[in-house]
Amino acid sequence: MRKVDFIVSADAILTANSQQPFIEKGAVAVQGSKIVGVETQGKILQQYESKKIFSLGDSLLTPGLINTHAHLPMSLLRGIANDLSLDEWLTKHIFPKERQNCSKEFVRLGTELALSELLLSGVTTVCDMYFFEDDIAEVCEEMGMRSVLGQSLFSGEAPDQASFEEGFHRAERFISRWKGHELVSPALAPHAPYSVDPDQFRRCAELAKDSSVLLMSHILETKTEDSHFQKRYGMSVTEMLEDSGCFEVPFLMAHFVWPNDSDLKRVTKNVAIAHCPQSNLKLADGFCPVQRLHDCELTVGLGTDGPASNNDFDFFAEIQTAALIQKAITENPESLKANKVFEMATLDGAKALALQDKVGSLQVGKCADIIAISRDGLHHWPHHDVYAEFTYATKASDVTHVWVNGELLVENKKLTRVDQKDLRTRVKNFSIR
Amino acid sequence: MRKVDFIVSADAILTANSQQPFIEKGAVAVQGSKIVGVETQGKILQQYESKKIFSLGDSLLTPGLINTHAHLPMSLLRGIANDLSLDEWLTKHIFPKERQNCSKEFVRLGTELALSELLLSGVTTVCDMYFFEDDIAEVCEEMGMRSVLGQSLFSGEAPDQASFEEGFHRAERFISRWKGHELVSPALAPHAPYSVDPDQFRRCAELAKDSSVLLMSHILETKTEDSHFQKRYGMSVTEMLEDSGCFEVPFLMAHFVWPNDSDLKRVTKNVAIAHCPQSNLKLADGFCPVQRLHDCELTVGLGTDGPASNNDFDFFAEIQTAALIQKAITENPESLKANKVFEMATLDGAKALALQDKVGSLQVGKCADIIAISRDGLHHWPHHDVYAEFTYATKASDVTHVWVNGELLVENKKLTRVDQKDLRTRVKNFSIR
Repeated sequence: MRKVDFIVSADAILTANSQQPFIEKGAVAVQGSKIVGVETQGKILQQYESKKIFSLGDSLLTPGLINTHAHLPMSLLRGIANDLSLDEWLTKHIFPKERQNCSKEFVRLGTELALSELLLSGVTTVCDMYFFEDDIAEVCEEMGMRSVLGQSLFSGEAPDQASFEEGFHRAERFISRWKGHELVSPALAPHAPYSVDPDQFRRCAELAKDSSVLLMSHILETKTEDSHFQKRYGMSVTEMLEDSGCFEVPFLMAHFVWPNDSDLKRVTKNVAIAHCPQSNLKLADGFCPVQRLHDCELTVGLGTDGPASNNDFDFFAEIQTAALIQKAITENPESLKANKVFEMATLDGAKALALQDKVGSLQVGKCADIIAISRDGLHHWPHHDVYAEFTYATKASDVTHVWVNGELLVENKKLTRVDQKDLRTRVKNFSIR
Repeated sequence: MRKVDFIVSADAILTANSQQPFIEKGAVAVQGSKIVGVETQGKILQQYESKKIFSLGDSLLTPGLINTHAHLPMSLLRGIANDLSLDEWLTKHIFPKERQNCSKEFVRLGTELALSELLLSGVTTVCDMYFFEDDIAEVCEEMGMRSVLGQSLFSGEAPDQASFEEGFHRAERFISRWKGHELVSPALAPHAPYSVDPDQFRRCAELAKDSSVLLMSHILETKTEDSHFQKRYGMSVTEMLEDSGCFEVPFLMAHFVWPNDSDLKRVTKNVAIAHCPQSNLKLADGFCPVQRLHDCELTVGLGTDGPASNNDFDFFAEIQTAALIQKAITENPESLKANKVFEMATLDGAKALALQDKVGSLQVGKCADIIAISRDGLHHWPHHDVYAEFTYATKASDVTHVWVNGELLVENKKLTRVDQKDLRTRVKNFSIR
């Protein structure tokens, strides 16, 4: 009998490991930050013993969910401008609000609020792009969240940079500070082709390559982005990205709603997409052709985007929306079947963030990022199909336990490291101008 | 000071009454089954006193939500067949399962499960179409739910009729039994133009007219429904409906995803639409053009459809999905603004069911169908815009209190009349063949 730190058992496990995708009456054994056993309860209890056993009964265990695109501190701007197009929303409301409010304090409090909400809804890894990313990284570390954090860059002024040059140096320092951290992976985030110049994209690609970090950007989010870009630069967005070396490094493209056939031919296997269905719909950006991206064998993860355009971090709502809209736009109900969407929310998300060796599935040797979902709710009954239940009927509020890197961050629907009431009070008292 | 049965107060009220849509620090006074006061807390407490005061603090009070299209007992078939087209799903899976399983016991247990789930998510009025509607009505009455119940009719055999004739007589008896009931409104539900003959539609329209009940049916749910109908009958579906007198009575059309310009010209002001966004998406039926229906001044309510194609009765998920997809299909983020979707979920739903004199808004003289939504959840913070918060961020799990006709059916997220654990056990032990 091998002693382990804890064992968690439940009536059902979806592992996202194709060798053994479903385990009835299963258990996971965890030692330190790692999974050491995933098997039926019988087998686990024969091999492992622990003083700490979570016997969750009628629950479902899955890998922690992976949010591949967010702007964490924007939680403080939730609902501040609604029912507007991306352009109007961004230039008339969000950018001015950020200029007025985006300080280190704003970023830290907004991140704390965001991570709390994400953890409560089962997200264990989040990919962020924002300003003052160093402060965001510190909050992620303090809260025990796994994260991939891209310091944002603009061609000119931004809340945390007077010029691109200043921002670029800040990004270099950010990367060298956090490189190799167990939970926080630094990354580089030139904002978008309409806000960062092509030569600046090239410098970012080079830095990403040299420092082996993920490169990420907002790409082809709206219908007119590419034609505007072509008018300005005489080439398409994906031509610029190819030309500037972005496709030679692991590159995460957020949105990618409007690729044409040439774009799809041009992108390489280094590229993954962060699909943010609710934000795309709310801003009337359009429908990302996920089925077509899958047909091109591209990896597509799911993302919430920021809560100023969403308006929450409810990852289960993204899961359901992604599955539902793809069927309607392809006129094919077999598009994004329930089990495929489960994979997008877990293993594919990990692949999109280049973290598939560490997380994304419940497998021996991977980090213990695990969530438990109660199946007690009436909306779970009867239990006819576990994948359909996960994709179409599970709510964020069903998540009862969340472990990140072996640490229990949510227990019985309560955050273990955060005083929720105190956090609400601080948010209430933080004034937004 | 006038004595009343109870007073409920909260930091915010959305009334759905255009005279006074929002009340900060408001309260509602209830006597018997009726609302007698809706005002600021100061004014209510000056005029009314009660031994029972619910002081809910940071909560939002709204009218109870109105689900205009459901198949309640299908809760027992939740998740039984997924990622299939309407035709395949219906003919190869659902109809055979119903032939095998649909008994009075199935209908009663399924309805109890469905109503419990609906109440917990803030729905106080539900419109149903199914078999053994008499049993469904009894369960609605027992549970205290407001309902509009359409006995389903098919051209031939069905689980509760050997022939249309037998079904029609059952429907007549059903209507006369329940006519005038305080909570249960009987209605008539010829299933669809592809499953009920035109002369049978005519007889249904006549019966609805003679007995003053709502007529309802599934209309133009799929892209090919109209062309198949035209091939068979030499006229369009809406021509048949007009010709058979369906547009001369209050007529509720579920889905109506594929109207063309002639259809839109033909429908009269008697007609309302039950829009079921999640079911339409999941079955790849398409996108109902709600904005166009609104432009034609048609009333559109929201519906969940049955949980076999949804897979739950989460009304807030429908609210959010309806708002989001309409923006994307119209390429206009101003389509279905947050406040309009709130109205669809409340007052427009009441209008669609011809119940607007009784429910749909918090107004003196209307029935006390009220819900309270906790704004404690981190996803509600900060409170920048109450309509956006309702439409884009509120979860079914935020509903804390539900009153129907003045009776408290959900208190602190618990059903008052149903033992949830016992219900789960009965569902678990009910075998589906």
